[in-house]
Amino acid sequence: MKKIAVIMGSDSDLPVMEKCINKIKEFGVPCEVRVLSAHRTPSQTKEFASSLKENGFGVVIAAAGKAAHLAGAVAANTILPVIGIPVKSSTLDGLDALLSTVQMPSGMPVATVAIDGAENAALLALQILAVSDEEIAHKFDNMRKIASEKVLEKDRIISEKYSFYAE
Amino acid sequence: MKKIAVIMGSDSDLPVMEKCINKIKEFGVPCEVRVLSAHRTPSQTKEFASSLKENGFGVVIAAAGKAAHLAGAVAANTILPVIGIPVKSSTLDGLDALLSTVQMPSGMPVATVAIDGAENAALLALQILAVSDEEIAHKFDNMRKIASEKVLEKDRIISEKYSFYAE
Amino acid sequence: MKKIAVIMGSDSDLPVMEKCINKIKEFGVPCEVRVLSAHRTPSQTKEFASSLKENGFGVVIAAAGKAAHLAGAVAANTILPVIGIPVKSSTLDGLDALLSTVQMPSGMPVATVAIDGAENAALLALQILAVSDEEIAHKFDNMRKIASEKVLEKDRIISEKYSFYAE
Amino acid sequence: MKKIAVIMGSDSDLPVMEKCINKIKEFGVPCEVRVLSAHRTPSQTKEFASSLKENGFGVVIAAAGKAAHLAGAVAANTILPVIGIPVKSSTLDGLDALLSTVQMPSGMPVATVAIDGAENAALLALQILAVSDEEIAHKFDNMRKIASEKVLEKDRIISEKYSFYAE
Amino acid sequence: MKKIAVIMGSDSDLPVMEKCINKIKEFGVPCEVRVLSAHRTPSQTKEFASSLKENGFGVVIAAAGKAAHLAGAVAANTILPVIGIPVKSSTLDGLDALLSTVQMPSGMPVATVAIDGAENAALLALQILAVSDEEIAHKFDNMRKIASEKVLEKDRIISEKYSFYAE
Amino acid sequence: MKKIAVIMGSDSDLPVMEKCINKIKEFGVPCEVRVLSAHRTPSQTKEFASSLKENGFGVVIAAAGKAAHLAGAVAANTILPVIGIPVKSSTLDGLDALLSTVQMPSGMPVATVAIDGAENAALLALQILAVSDEEIAHKFDNMRKIASEKVLEKDRIISEKYSFYAE
Amino acid sequence: MKKIAVIMGSDSDLPVMEKCINKIKEFGVPCEVRVLSAHRTPSQTKEFASSLKENGFGVVIAAAGKAAHLAGAVAANTILPVIGIPVKSSTLDGLDALLSTVQMPSGMPVATVAIDGAENAALLALQILAVSDEEIAHKFDNMRKIASEKVLEKDRIISEKYSFYAE
Amino acid sequence: MKKIAVIMGSDSDLPVMEKCINKIKEFGVPCEVRVLSAHRTPSQTKEFASSLKENGFGVVIAAAGKAAHLAGAVAANTILPVIGIPVKSSTLDGLDALLSTVQMPSGMPVATVAIDGAENAALLALQILAVSDEEIAHKFDNMRKIASEKVLEKDRIISEKYSFYAE
Repeated sequence: MKKIAVIMGSDSDLPVMEKCINKIKEFGVPCEVRVLSAHRTPSQTKEFASSLKENGFGVVIAAAGKAAHLAGAVAANTILPVIGIPVKSSTLDGLDALLSTVQMPSGMPVATVAIDGAENAALLALQILAVSDEEIAHKFDNMRKIASEKVLEKDRIISEKYSFYAE
Repeated sequence: MKKIAVIMGSDSDLPVMEKCINKIKEFGVPCEVRVLSAHRTPSQTKEFASSLKENGFGVVIAAAGKAAHLAGAVAANTILPVIGIPVKSSTLDGLDALLSTVQMPSGMPVATVAIDGAENAALLALQILAVSDEEIAHKFDNMRKIASEKVLEKDRIISEKYSFYAE
Repeated sequence: MKKIAVIMGSDSDLPVMEKCINKIKEFGVPCEVRVLSAHRTPSQTKEFASSLKENGFGVVIAAAGKAAHLAGAVAANTILPVIGIPVKSSTLDGLDALLSTVQMPSGMPVATVAIDGAENAALLALQILAVSDEEIAHKFDNMRKIASEKVLEKDRIISEKYSFYAE
Repeated sequence: MKKIAVIMGSDSDLPVMEKCINKIKEFGVPCEVRVLSAHRTPSQTKEFASSLKENGFGVVIAAAGKAAHLAGAVAANTILPVIGIPVKSSTLDGLDALLSTVQMPSGMPVATVAIDGAENAALLALQILAVSDEEIAHKFDNMRKIASEKVLEKDRIISEKYSFYAE
Repeated sequence: MKKIAVIMGSDSDLPVMEKCINKIKEFGVPCEVRVLSAHRTPSQTKEFASSLKENGFGVVIAAAGKAAHLAGAVAANTILPVIGIPVKSSTLDGLDALLSTVQMPSGMPVATVAIDGAENAALLALQILAVSDEEIAHKFDNMRKIASEKVLEKDRIISEKYSFYAE
Repeated sequence: MKKIAVIMGSDSDLPVMEKCINKIKEFGVPCEVRVLSAHRTPSQTKEFASSLKENGFGVVIAAAGKAAHLAGAVAANTILPVIGIPVKSSTLDGLDALLSTVQMPSGMPVATVAIDGAENAALLALQILAVSDEEIAHKFDNMRKIASEKVLEKDRIISEKYSFYAE
Repeated sequence: MKKIAVIMGSDSDLPVMEKCINKIKEFGVPCEVRVLSAHRTPSQTKEFASSLKENGFGVVIAAAGKAAHLAGAVAANTILPVIGIPVKSSTLDGLDALLSTVQMPSGMPVATVAIDGAENAALLALQILAVSDEEIAHKFDNMRKIASEKVLEKDRIISEKYSFYAE
Repeated sequence: MKKIAVIMGSDSDLPVMEKCINKIKEFGVPCEVRVLSAHRTPSQTKEFASSLKENGFGVVIAAAGKAAHLAGAVAANTILPVIGIPVKSSTLDGLDALLSTVQMPSGMPVATVAIDGAENAALLALQILAVSDEEIAHKFDNMRKIASEKVLEKDRIISEKYSFYAE
């Protein structure tokens, strides 16, 4: 089974990223979690990215805030699909990280999810692995059904409580 | 070999999307191109999305402008990874399409590329298929080397022409 | 009397939506409240939207956050007027939901109110029903007069307290 | 049959508004077109708005650019539903008009459509009248089917021309 | 001595506006404070604005949030200079109020100050009266000198505490 | 009669500023036009600003683009009311100039008009002088009436041409 | 050794600026800290800026919020490189200060760092001095290595704690 | 004399960058011009950046558009001051490049100039070298005086042509 690499630019991203890591664990997919900085540890980032494919990884998730270059720096050194999570920081509500992640120049895509969308990044990584792994696909299908059931259950409760009809 | 589905919300997106289609053709990957509207042909969109997996597709690309709901509408009906291209329209420079595509709620990711990033969407789709297809991976590697060579060639020309040294 | 359908994309929208529901109740107009997700329960959303007219509804209110597709998904399946409430979420201050709701493509309008404008959505729905229902129109007129009186009363208090004249 | 009032803040909005007027004509709904400025002819604006209901109108469309106050000024003087069209002007791409139109304070909704969304405003007005007018409803249904057919036709052409399959 | 009119669109603007009122009082200039809503009390707003000049006012300050139409509604009914204060509300950080206030169409200026810039609005009103009132001009000059002295004093304290020189 | 000073930060602002100058000439108010840069000729800017009052000026208009500091630099050196025109330049559609002009810190207001709002700046300057000059006030009143007539005339033409009534 | 001048527009910027001052002290570079306002103490600002070079300074850091003119005002009066720190204030999340600082017109650059990027401003000032001061360069190199080590250490801890491998 | 390195992310940035290169040539400072991509030629970028200091460079200018990572990638590999030019591309008016360049995380500053501010980047580089090079400082001073003279000359012409005085 191919592994998922989860990289964050700083340990301050950890609270956001735990949802991502937990979702991957829930699916039982092996996952390596790293703190690598495009700017403070560029060599290690490059080295890790360059050897992802040969080390059995199938997809990478990279999370960073502000002028978020991490996902792009990883993408430049691997042909694996790279998922970028723009992380909200103290100013600009994550818009800086979103644009720095999604507006990649031609030739070097980063599959960007919502600001602080750590859980969705995990789901996207699982969907990518599921393209060639029916077991993950099957689990994914089930998870979707359960999520759908939850909405339906809430619909029943709230509809009963809040609807009203003129007498 | 898994196929790529390329969907656009309107035929007016075609000039942007030709770069996407051409890049996929360059790799020789089979590709079905469709015009499907989340709002004007919702049933057809749902039907097409729901049967993607069983019809041998591995990944979907969906392009739409303004309040771009197409990628999300497709994602809601398949577990295949969905790549979203926000298309720039006559106002707001594509920011509306970008936010409508990338800010997906928890549980339903869309792998978003840059505004009008049609070529990058194709590359991302190819990278996703390459996870389990060494032939595509190999071609991808080659394409990267050629792109890199082109930059190096331009570097040589421009460096020679524009650098100068005080005598 | 025609009914109003109130749909929210998630039960987390309920605190915002209570103002909407209460305002409709205040007018004694029958109202069905539902939790339906464009992405997690697309079939139920479609089914509910498609049968609104034949089930005696006159207008629909749909509230959602982030890449808010709910109002559009409803609009695609009914010819009733659809009112969209963009709900503010944890980032971008509701701008994402606003643009995803209001920037609808040609042919498929959503009557958009302010971010978190749940009360205004109720008022707009009532105004729409009032076009052919003099009773609601009459109540609406009265409510406006009371609102106006309240401003005038506050004007008297504050004007007296804060104005001053050089002796 | 109730009439639709179409108001623009300046005759420079006419090129945008012709799509709106034409769509209403297409449905054969009577329509009064006016140039009224919230700022340059405030009395006439107020007078016109105040007497809309008694003059047989069912809904109002108001279009304005920049700090677009027209829709709000009309809404303050009628209980008819007011549809606002934010018009793009020479700077800020219509964002100023959008926010000035949609962010109405509590108690005074304006049903806002997309920037320059003149056709959608007409459709929304027709949907509002259709709530109590089955003839308009019927025509609306037909128009939708035709629009849907057009997308399907384009789908056939483009799908055939651009799809390809590895031999 | 000409009076200053201070209008706010809602009593919820009072906390912001107290700085404005206090600054005017500090200068001993007569000031009438009113709560008038462009939308909920349009007649009273118009009436008050129309008679400002004949009632001895020299300048008007109008504060409002969201789709802030108040300053424009006042400007449409008086030839006195109108100062607009965009008030920050629960979403968009005041950007909606800023654009709704400053982007006035040709022919109808509103002298806009910063978001929540209530004190500056008072100062601007005083500067306008000072054009033809040497007493206010003199007080204004003094106030500036005191403000300048305060900065110089803080400069001395902070410079001494924080500067350092390599030994 | 008090004079109006019109300052622009660069001669490239002239095309925008001609509407301002022409409007002042239309009123016959004496006007000195200057090119002064807060950054390239700071001493001349300061000197000119400092002596405005003693030289018989009543109000200043300052226009600049990008990080528009000119209006603020003038305001810091005079107690005359300063009107700022944010000028649109090649990027960001004038938003940079708008925020640089309007978001002045406490104590130093700049009366900001719309982006490229040169005519409105002239009108605001005239309104300020009119506070103590009945002749300008009278001309201003007339101009307003003519502007209003023009809208009414356009209303008649367009209403007749575009309104229609079901037979 | 050349000195660094650290200027803030208001003492309210001090909490942000302490990180800047502390970083410079850490390097033992002499540093003069001043509170100077482009608007409230323009003469002192100009005087200080004009004499920086002859007083042994090598670089200036200027921090201000809102319509942040301080860095530009300093740049206009010295040929030393000026570093601008846009400070976040109560609205707009620092975007106003960022654009007011970075969008300087041609001929007058300000070296802008991130919103509230006080520490980075210090580092940039030190890098500038290090161009001709090997001692600072050496210390800078060391600091980088330590920062890199910290990331590597966090990488080890988090990688060990959060990575997991399917059994 | 220390050299200036000028790097652009793509040869499409050349039209913007020629102003930068020409300004450096005007000062006679040796300059190496390179096309290096953070994503397409990451190794060459790193290699070039790492050896800048030992190769006699004093400062680096890096220009890139969209998710502009180039300046950051260079900064991560040198302790020389790095000047970043955000280049406007086909969407978002350069805001993406601005935020990707200026919002650098703590520890890794990029001295950012205005969008497309190529000439200012050159001037900033020259100012940095001038800290320890009196010849450049002297030329810089002269250039400033000439720029100031030009403004004064334009002031004379425009003031004479456009000012007018009531007879």
